[in-house]
Amino acid sequence: MKKTSKKVNAAIIIIGNEILSGRTQDVNVVHLSKWLNELGVKVEEVRVIPDIENSIVNTVNELRKKFKYVFTTGGIGPTHDDITSRSIAKAFNVSYGYNKDAYETLEKYYKPGEFNDGRKKMAKMPDKASLIYNPSSGAPGFIVENVYCLPGVPSILKSMVDGLKKIISGGKKILSKTISVSTVESEIAKPLEDIQNKFKNIEIGSYPFFRLGKVGVSIVMRSTELEQIKDCAKQIQSFIKQKKIKILRSE
Amino acid sequence: MKKTSKKVNAAIIIIGNEILSGRTQDVNVVHLSKWLNELGVKVEEVRVIPDIENSIVNTVNELRKKFKYVFTTGGIGPTHDDITSRSIAKAFNVSYGYNKDAYETLEKYYKPGEFNDGRKKMAKMPDKASLIYNPSSGAPGFIVENVYCLPGVPSILKSMVDGLKKIISGGKKILSKTISVSTVESEIAKPLEDIQNKFKNIEIGSYPFFRLGKVGVSIVMRSTELEQIKDCAKQIQSFIKQKKIKILRSE
Repeated sequence: MKKTSKKVNAAIIIIGNEILSGRTQDVNVVHLSKWLNELGVKVEEVRVIPDIENSIVNTVNELRKKFKYVFTTGGIGPTHDDITSRSIAKAFNVSYGYNKDAYETLEKYYKPGEFNDGRKKMAKMPDKASLIYNPSSGAPGFIVENVYCLPGVPSILKSMVDGLKKIISGGKKILSKTISVSTVESEIAKPLEDIQNKFKNIEIGSYPFFRLGKVGVSIVMRSTELEQIKDCAKQIQSFIKQKKIKILRSE
Repeated sequence: MKKTSKKVNAAIIIIGNEILSGRTQDVNVVHLSKWLNELGVKVEEVRVIPDIENSIVNTVNELRKKFKYVFTTGGIGPTHDDITSRSIAKAFNVSYGYNKDAYETLEKYYKPGEFNDGRKKMAKMPDKASLIYNPSSGAPGFIVENVYCLPGVPSILKSMVDGLKKIISGGKKILSKTISVSTVESEIAKPLEDIQNKFKNIEIGSYPFFRLGKVGVSIVMRSTELEQIKDCAKQIQSFIKQKKIKILRSE
């Protein structure tokens, strides 16, 4: 994997009425974001959109110009509501039809006589798509330029992204450090803001939590610069100590 | 609550770097979407965006014109990374400052001497915002025109939406029926597509699942029209029976 110093960003498009209706809890954003973080790619936007061709075409065309990488999840199965592949072809204005490699992969995957029309549909892709290998259930994902199309089923998605590591050119890995303290946000707001103003390269987030009836705040520092995170953490620990607030965890 | 027959839609904007980085699993979309479904409001888009003023301003301004309701979550706390209120003021081009009612609410909520600057910040809102009552932790949410701003902490958000029921004018309630069957999607793709083509008012979704090592498909029908859902379900059950596929659950 080539390392570039330029910030490398990505967007995720979750395609699926079942997420919008609240029927299904998305978990793919967490998985993809963490995985991309490790590769030095920062997810800067997520959209959840319905299984409607226009929505997919417009969203893909908007985001593929704004971000280095775009990942879509969902809509590449065999049923009528799986319209991602066809819509991506339309977004790129290329033809949509059987991909020879995908067809052969699926033909081999199924027992003789089981490669029916529904399954054949999963071999239909935008022209010139490259395949993403699927070790779980045969049907490949695909790549068109900077758009990576993955399935919606989390276990299958997880099994497929591993193979992508080699072709994603990330920047520096995004590092993070969390200091969890036993206080409320308003107590630390001012000193935290002062520290944020000093460390422009660090994204400092403050997240209140309630666990077992106790309140606390997790202060999260994120940056590609380890030494700066260390300096920043020292300054945070110092004012926390001064204020006699208990540090619950530092990781 | 007034019922209108016109389709009433909404978008949700999740504001927070912690969701984009994968550190925090969002659960507010599921809660808001289900709650809005009950009120006859269909969530048609979700965006997750970072704690960056321009992103918030542009996203809010784009979506508030496209959707009847826009809900934002996150960024209304006391710390430096809580910039939603200020950004919403900018989006609407109105001033940002202390909201008298919010100030008084918070002043009453805290013990004397505890209403510090961090907490006072939570009373700063766009001019002419209406408040959303917070029974959990005092700090109110707010409404500007069709934009409803809620906190990111799920338990607090949940406690606040109840009070909004009366002011959301939904359409007909969106009903759903699910038939779970013991098969794979490719086996039912063709008849399901034929049925979808007959029932244009029903959104039919097909979702594969893997539970305890067994595969299955949930067929979900969604519509405001109960009788049509019943007819559609009958036709689905009929072809499932014909194909000698086992129905695992019908609900």
